[in-house]
Amino acid sequence: MDVAARIETALKRAIECNVGPSSPPRLTAAIRYAVFPGGARIRPRLCVAVSQACAGRVTSAAICAAVSIEFLHCASLVHDDLPCFDDAAMRRGRPSLHRAFGEPLAVLTGDALIVLAFHALAAAGNSSHSLLPILVRTIARGSGMPGGIVAGQGWECEPHVEVGAYHRAKTGGLFAAAAVAGAVASGADGAAWHAFGESMGEAYQVADDLRDVAADSSEIGKPTGKDAALRRPSAVAQLGVSGALQRLEQLIAAAIDAVPVCAGVDELRSHIITESSRLVPRKLARPAA
Amino acid sequence: MDVAARIETALKRAIECNVGPSSPPRLTAAIRYAVFPGGARIRPRLCVAVSQACAGRVTSAAICAAVSIEFLHCASLVHDDLPCFDDAAMRRGRPSLHRAFGEPLAVLTGDALIVLAFHALAAAGNSSHSLLPILVRTIARGSGMPGGIVAGQGWECEPHVEVGAYHRAKTGGLFAAAAVAGAVASGADGAAWHAFGESMGEAYQVADDLRDVAADSSEIGKPTGKDAALRRPSAVAQLGVSGALQRLEQLIAAAIDAVPVCAGVDELRSHIITESSRLVPRKLARPAA
Repeated sequence: MDVAARIETALKRAIECNVGPSSPPRLTAAIRYAVFPGGARIRPRLCVAVSQACAGRVTSAAICAAVSIEFLHCASLVHDDLPCFDDAAMRRGRPSLHRAFGEPLAVLTGDALIVLAFHALAAAGNSSHSLLPILVRTIARGSGMPGGIVAGQGWECEPHVEVGAYHRAKTGGLFAAAAVAGAVASGADGAAWHAFGESMGEAYQVADDLRDVAADSSEIGKPTGKDAALRRPSAVAQLGVSGALQRLEQLIAAAIDAVPVCAGVDELRSHIITESSRLVPRKLARPAA
Repeated sequence: MDVAARIETALKRAIECNVGPSSPPRLTAAIRYAVFPGGARIRPRLCVAVSQACAGRVTSAAICAAVSIEFLHCASLVHDDLPCFDDAAMRRGRPSLHRAFGEPLAVLTGDALIVLAFHALAAAGNSSHSLLPILVRTIARGSGMPGGIVAGQGWECEPHVEVGAYHRAKTGGLFAAAAVAGAVASGADGAAWHAFGESMGEAYQVADDLRDVAADSSEIGKPTGKDAALRRPSAVAQLGVSGALQRLEQLIAAAIDAVPVCAGVDELRSHIITESSRLVPRKLARPAA
């Protein structure tokens, strides 16, 4: 089974283990709607790519970590789209969750997915109990306070925003967690992978800012122009389109430089280059050299 | 330090470890507001009472579990009070969190507390790594799908509600988790404590229904009469006040019967009797025999 299929199967299985005839049916349907069909699954694929690079194979603990991280990402999208935040009507080419299921179920779906993220992670302790404490801490740091997604979203509620802290938390935190968890779950030193994960996250954030101004809404499955409308800090607002493209290239280069010594370093570099070319909106993509 | 003070200190410490100069200040303040000053801390006190009964002392892993459970409880109150659910104006005698900080920060506070619950739990793996997987699963079950608080809240969004499943999930789940986690964290067999925890949860639910009709709002720090206004299933609606009081006594007796053989069984029984007398609204309380 290829990596993408393994991730989908593991996501499905983790949900199926936690719903059943005794669970409220509409909430069950809403949880599935939040996770399937997925987006690009960039964070879990990063996690397993690091595992592959460190261990020469994708460990089962890395799959658990990847699933956990994707659930947290999906939870953040559902809560982010709520009327009290972005009030987004569309997500992944169809109605956002609160438009399809109502606001109460959207709040609960996010909550259920956060809990499920840690429940699914518990299985990472099956092979080695000692992995779990560090994986829980790593993933909690990437998603909660003071530097994870929730903190990042929290900066949007402040009168004065420190842009660097905002981006590092809102995007960088979970990317760093994906890289660190992939390494830890494969017996490697997680801390050595933090800078790499953060650079990948920052690159993703810049690419996302570029897509918001230069992609078609059909390409990204949601309306464009949101950053400007919501006056969010954005690399494009700060640097212009060509400046942001240049920044993206620098960040990808920095990520590649930050890859620690590991068995599968060449394979991982190819993965990064392939991923980064997928991030750029079609109309800005350069022809391959 | 007595048990109540130990729980407060541990709650404070867990929050302080996860906020700092780099965390968004308003979200930080909102998280503290959600947790302090607390309510009766019934669930964490149950967890540590079970630890004391099993091990003859309160283990540090039980304190971690108690903290985790209280954070999840506080998160559920904050989200429960949101305009899309109860739209509650008051909680613990002062404005509910979304009235004090706004809806976006109320959503994020709940999210941050769920993540923090698992982050704080990770320290339970410090003494023995093998405890953590079962503690994570136990507490996730009590809080998520299919039978935890989130699922219970999910039943409120269904056109047809199975009342038993609703109560077992919305209240029983986290009480059962508190009892089971207290036992597991003390080296005892968690499964043996499940029925006891569920009975305590059901008793608490009936007492809560009684307080909703028979307490002053100053006694419980929030308006009364909410169940009838929101047409929620309630033991009082079903059995009347005296029927519900009788049911409460039966449930307390059932909980006492369900206490497994353990070193501190007598002390635990006194704890249950003291707790249950605190649950009954003042105007319904019988004079001590």
